Amino acid sequence: MKALIYRGPGSKVLEDRPKPKIKDPGDAIVKMMKTTICGTDLHILKGDVPTCKPGRILGHEGVGVVDSLGPGVTSFRQGDKVLISCISACGICEYCRRGMYSHCTTGGWILGNEIDGTQAEYVRTPHADTSLYHIPEGADEEALVMLSDILPTGFECGVLNGKVAPGSSVAIVGSGPIGLAALLTAQFYSPAQIIVVDLDDNRLGLARQFGATCTINSGDDKAAEAVKALTGGRGVDTAIEAVGVPATFQLCEDIVAPGGVIANIGVHGKKVDLHLEWLWSQNIEITTRLVDTVSTPMLLKTVEAKKIDPRRLITHRFTLDHILDAYETFGHAADTRALKVIIAA
Amino acid sequence: MKALIYRGPGSKVLEDRPKPKIKDPGDAIVKMMKTTICGTDLHILKGDVPTCKPGRILGHEGVGVVDSLGPGVTSFRQGDKVLISCISACGICEYCRRGMYSHCTTGGWILGNEIDGTQAEYVRTPHADTSLYHIPEGADEEALVMLSDILPTGFECGVLNGKVAPGSSVAIVGSGPIGLAALLTAQFYSPAQIIVVDLDDNRLGLARQFGATCTINSGDDKAAEAVKALTGGRGVDTAIEAVGVPATFQLCEDIVAPGGVIANIGVHGKKVDLHLEWLWSQNIEITTRLVDTVSTPMLLKTVEAKKIDPRRLITHRFTLDHILDAYETFGHAADTRALKVIIAA
Amino acid sequence: MKALIYRGPGSKVLEDRPKPKIKDPGDAIVKMMKTTICGTDLHILKGDVPTCKPGRILGHEGVGVVDSLGPGVTSFRQGDKVLISCISACGICEYCRRGMYSHCTTGGWILGNEIDGTQAEYVRTPHADTSLYHIPEGADEEALVMLSDILPTGFECGVLNGKVAPGSSVAIVGSGPIGLAALLTAQFYSPAQIIVVDLDDNRLGLARQFGATCTINSGDDKAAEAVKALTGGRGVDTAIEAVGVPATFQLCEDIVAPGGVIANIGVHGKKVDLHLEWLWSQNIEITTRLVDTVSTPMLLKTVEAKKIDPRRLITHRFTLDHILDAYETFGHAADTRALKVIIAA
Amino acid sequence: MKALIYRGPGSKVLEDRPKPKIKDPGDAIVKMMKTTICGTDLHILKGDVPTCKPGRILGHEGVGVVDSLGPGVTSFRQGDKVLISCISACGICEYCRRGMYSHCTTGGWILGNEIDGTQAEYVRTPHADTSLYHIPEGADEEALVMLSDILPTGFECGVLNGKVAPGSSVAIVGSGPIGLAALLTAQFYSPAQIIVVDLDDNRLGLARQFGATCTINSGDDKAAEAVKALTGGRGVDTAIEAVGVPATFQLCEDIVAPGGVIANIGVHGKKVDLHLEWLWSQNIEITTRLVDTVSTPMLLKTVEAKKIDPRRLITHRFTLDHILDAYETFGHAADTRALKVIIAA
Repeated sequence: MKALIYRGPGSKVLEDRPKPKIKDPGDAIVKMMKTTICGTDLHILKGDVPTCKPGRILGHEGVGVVDSLGPGVTSFRQGDKVLISCISACGICEYCRRGMYSHCTTGGWILGNEIDGTQAEYVRTPHADTSLYHIPEGADEEALVMLSDILPTGFECGVLNGKVAPGSSVAIVGSGPIGLAALLTAQFYSPAQIIVVDLDDNRLGLARQFGATCTINSGDDKAAEAVKALTGGRGVDTAIEAVGVPATFQLCEDIVAPGGVIANIGVHGKKVDLHLEWLWSQNIEITTRLVDTVSTPMLLKTVEAKKIDPRRLITHRFTLDHILDAYETFGHAADTRALKVIIAA
Repeated sequence: MKALIYRGPGSKVLEDRPKPKIKDPGDAIVKMMKTTICGTDLHILKGDVPTCKPGRILGHEGVGVVDSLGPGVTSFRQGDKVLISCISACGICEYCRRGMYSHCTTGGWILGNEIDGTQAEYVRTPHADTSLYHIPEGADEEALVMLSDILPTGFECGVLNGKVAPGSSVAIVGSGPIGLAALLTAQFYSPAQIIVVDLDDNRLGLARQFGATCTINSGDDKAAEAVKALTGGRGVDTAIEAVGVPATFQLCEDIVAPGGVIANIGVHGKKVDLHLEWLWSQNIEITTRLVDTVSTPMLLKTVEAKKIDPRRLITHRFTLDHILDAYETFGHAADTRALKVIIAA
Repeated sequence: MKALIYRGPGSKVLEDRPKPKIKDPGDAIVKMMKTTICGTDLHILKGDVPTCKPGRILGHEGVGVVDSLGPGVTSFRQGDKVLISCISACGICEYCRRGMYSHCTTGGWILGNEIDGTQAEYVRTPHADTSLYHIPEGADEEALVMLSDILPTGFECGVLNGKVAPGSSVAIVGSGPIGLAALLTAQFYSPAQIIVVDLDDNRLGLARQFGATCTINSGDDKAAEAVKALTGGRGVDTAIEAVGVPATFQLCEDIVAPGGVIANIGVHGKKVDLHLEWLWSQNIEITTRLVDTVSTPMLLKTVEAKKIDPRRLITHRFTLDHILDAYETFGHAADTRALKVIIAA
Repeated sequence: MKALIYRGPGSKVLEDRPKPKIKDPGDAIVKMMKTTICGTDLHILKGDVPTCKPGRILGHEGVGVVDSLGPGVTSFRQGDKVLISCISACGICEYCRRGMYSHCTTGGWILGNEIDGTQAEYVRTPHADTSLYHIPEGADEEALVMLSDILPTGFECGVLNGKVAPGSSVAIVGSGPIGLAALLTAQFYSPAQIIVVDLDDNRLGLARQFGATCTINSGDDKAAEAVKALTGGRGVDTAIEAVGVPATFQLCEDIVAPGGVIANIGVHGKKVDLHLEWLWSQNIEITTRLVDTVSTPMLLKTVEAKKIDPRRLITHRFTLDHILDAYETFGHAADTRALKVIIAA
């Protein structure tokens, strides 16, 4: 089968690989229908993710059809259409029982990282019973690809952790795909203000289309002042960090109101300064989270009920044969204006 | 009347001052019975609290008797014995309605800071209806002095924010009065482990007497390893920072388990390093809080029901005439082994 | 001044009364701009509310202008436009501190019940600081009349107590003004389904316009089956009782899913049967609540941000001179199709 | 193997049965070490549980050793000592993911009810990975038998649902084994008052030994008055119903304070009267729950940390050969003063 292989920092190739086989009783082999590329795939390609070794098939998102199943799987049958979660969860360990699938002792984010992933014709998914989801009849498959990772990430790490509430004020720092996913799902809770901050006017324009009540280009270093001005000098109830660098985290510290939350989504490569010399008395909360995908059933219901349209995140479509072009497009988003790209297997 | 006056960095004096008078309709004048000294008073004397100007009467804790009342006060009468909260709360502003009395727009921590305090024969307390508490008949007055600040601080900032729960593991970094207050109140929730970390073996001994299941002297830089060893390599569910310097906050980052909470109590003078380069994916929560004293009614009930004995925090007793000695004793705690000192007016 | 007086069961009159005066330091006298009539006023007129004695000026809703203030009031000035909450809250007692203003020991629902109310040219409002709300500049006054009682009631007793959540299923039993208020505010949380049940097809039509995803006329005794059919046989996550009779509460017991909530809003005159012989094992929750109006600040923000349009509940307008006509119209809602009527003072 | 068989209403027998075999990939066969008898077993024997058919081996509690395992089980090995939960949970279905194991679509309370149970030499346990728990090294096995059902039931249905909190007031109506289990676990949260109500003075004496702050014999119909007198006329924050008849539920309605919770544990055979004609405005919550055993990991930690001693519930010990005597003793608890009986296999 065709598969996109990580060959070490800076190098990837589309090549032939043997079709995966069942290894453990809880495994499924899924024939991929659609997959996508994540910002994390780009991190791997830069060499930033040491757990991912050369030779690995990349990808941790997608929808497909069950091809075969291990003897321990009870919830799926051959031919079932399934959504693949980016997080593999055993459902048994202490972390899984607490809903922290991201820290599953035999799972977590392993797909396209520690084991072969979804940018291929077939994928082996461990812990299938608790890591795959039935696709409702008639559902839009491309929309559901957004439920593998980006929407639960924006929702769990940004919106739920950030305690977005009716009438509250929210700032989302970073208007890339993940910031926009937070923006879409924040609206489930009817906040009064959603201020989006970014350096790219194109993406800020998208943010306004997606529901931002106000956008700020932070190029002039006056973003904190601007947010304060928009919130009566008080700052925001929820500051969502959706970039992952010290400057954007710093901005969140500057704009969070007393009693507010900084909900970090960004994947950080360096430490940041935490200004406890004044924040110690501000009654704030800072949260971090690797997505658990525990909200997938809830998100599936909101998509079915048309409370959200995940397709708005999709800008480009490719076939697996052209996945290198897809990477090119996704990797140069400032030029191509790409958000999420769909790759049909 | 006699009063302890802050004269600028490094300087204080006991001198005569006029008895305070009602200024606003919500004020009470309270004749002090007992007060105490807080670590914050020492901060002021070092010149670290710019809101506190020379000439100020210090002190924000104590019990007393209502001497006179403004016309707007409805809950107290002359002669009522009252507990004075360190936080003045109007009960009206948006923060007070949310239970964040610490950020009351016309109150907060003002006593012995922005207005004259309790280390005197009389004190004026604004917003009396929502900042004083009736002392139950027969209650131990010295015990209740601990409810002005130290117990609600340990409980709200450490225990409640830290989500201490039955069977959970807790580390308290810092075994001074505030760490011990967290230790006493953490036991309301029956955690399985309470590990206390400090540099002072005397205080660690006290911690064991007060209920710590294990203590660690962090002098050898191996405290993080020791905590990990005590928790099966996982770290603690709750790490309470009760010192306020970068090294102790760093230790909390090192020992918090995935899914855990770092609850900051310490008053920090400098920024700290937040290691988001690995904490971003650890699903942790960091909380800060200036005590709100919203838990005072709950704490009064636990004292009445003998679920906690706050007197254990009291090591020395003085009269107001000897308050300078009291400061001496409290300020050299390593030698005097002082925790809290009681000053009888 | 003109005032609508309750004269005993079945009898009311519009007559002249002296303008009210400040009695307590926390009082305000408010010159009424707009008021309305509540279903509870009709209950009083039937003689069902023994705390309300003949001679009482009715009404507990409205907006007005501060005419004068007691010496203890600190948040308002003469001339301020204010929203009057149906609940008077001292902000001091144990219940108020817990956010249970409805059980304030010197307040609660007293306006137009135990003390004179708002269906008059002026009203005295006790505990003004914590029972009145500033009207934002440029706000629609008629819309805000809906925030005195009906919207917080639907929201707090129905939606918040009912734990409405994104993707969840909700049934609202009763499509009168209060059921419709629950319907409008439930949408703050993006549930997947909102099923409204009533006997009146006109009101069910309104419910669909207001956002119901499905409506059921319960005239044929098959409403429970219909709700089950719409929810895959499982029942609803939230059943909101918005009528107040045994049959509608029974329906809620029949349609609540395992793990769900029955949130009672209805004012009941008789006991109901609670079928614990099967509900004991269904992991359900039943909640009751007299509105606390603690959500008023949140609701004001949602109105300002146009997340909700309370004007949709207003069907008729009268002047105070014609308040008897207003009662006539409101009291015959099946014929007049009245929801809420506005009365301009 | 020997097994205790239900033969229809009023009839049971100890007889030989074939050793159970693995049927599904997730099954375990457990060699029983210790089991016990539950009040529910007596209900079955009265014919009150229609899902339990004649011929069934009774029992849903106990500890044992893994004898064999299905191919899908990943967390246990032959020879492991295990605690058997009374609730079988697949860990996969929507209810299990929400922590509502009691409503697992292929499990729930089936052991000793819909499938053969633990009062035998061996038992087959489905969904072993998520229904068995490793017994910590050196743990007291008899103590852990109390964690199969009675302690999680008292804790989840009574204490957690009842929101017991530091300083709060609790009444437990019914001082049988389940009421005492609620009493033991309520103390995890340091309430100020725990009032226990029963008709049996022996059991009330036990309640005092187990930590009740006050006991009331309800034989004189003045229990409600007595509870009110003990709580300043207000009633209790938490009323735990631990009997299951209309009179005791009625008592809970009479003694719950405004803002309080009635947490039902009792297995009811008939409907009860819910007095909404006055409770509608009391801001109360009523909860029901079939135990989910989601708290088992937490309870295991509290037992290990000696925060609770479950052995206090054990009054008698038998061998499986004498299980009919054990039933006799347990079934006449008023005379024998039995709480829980241990049966060694």
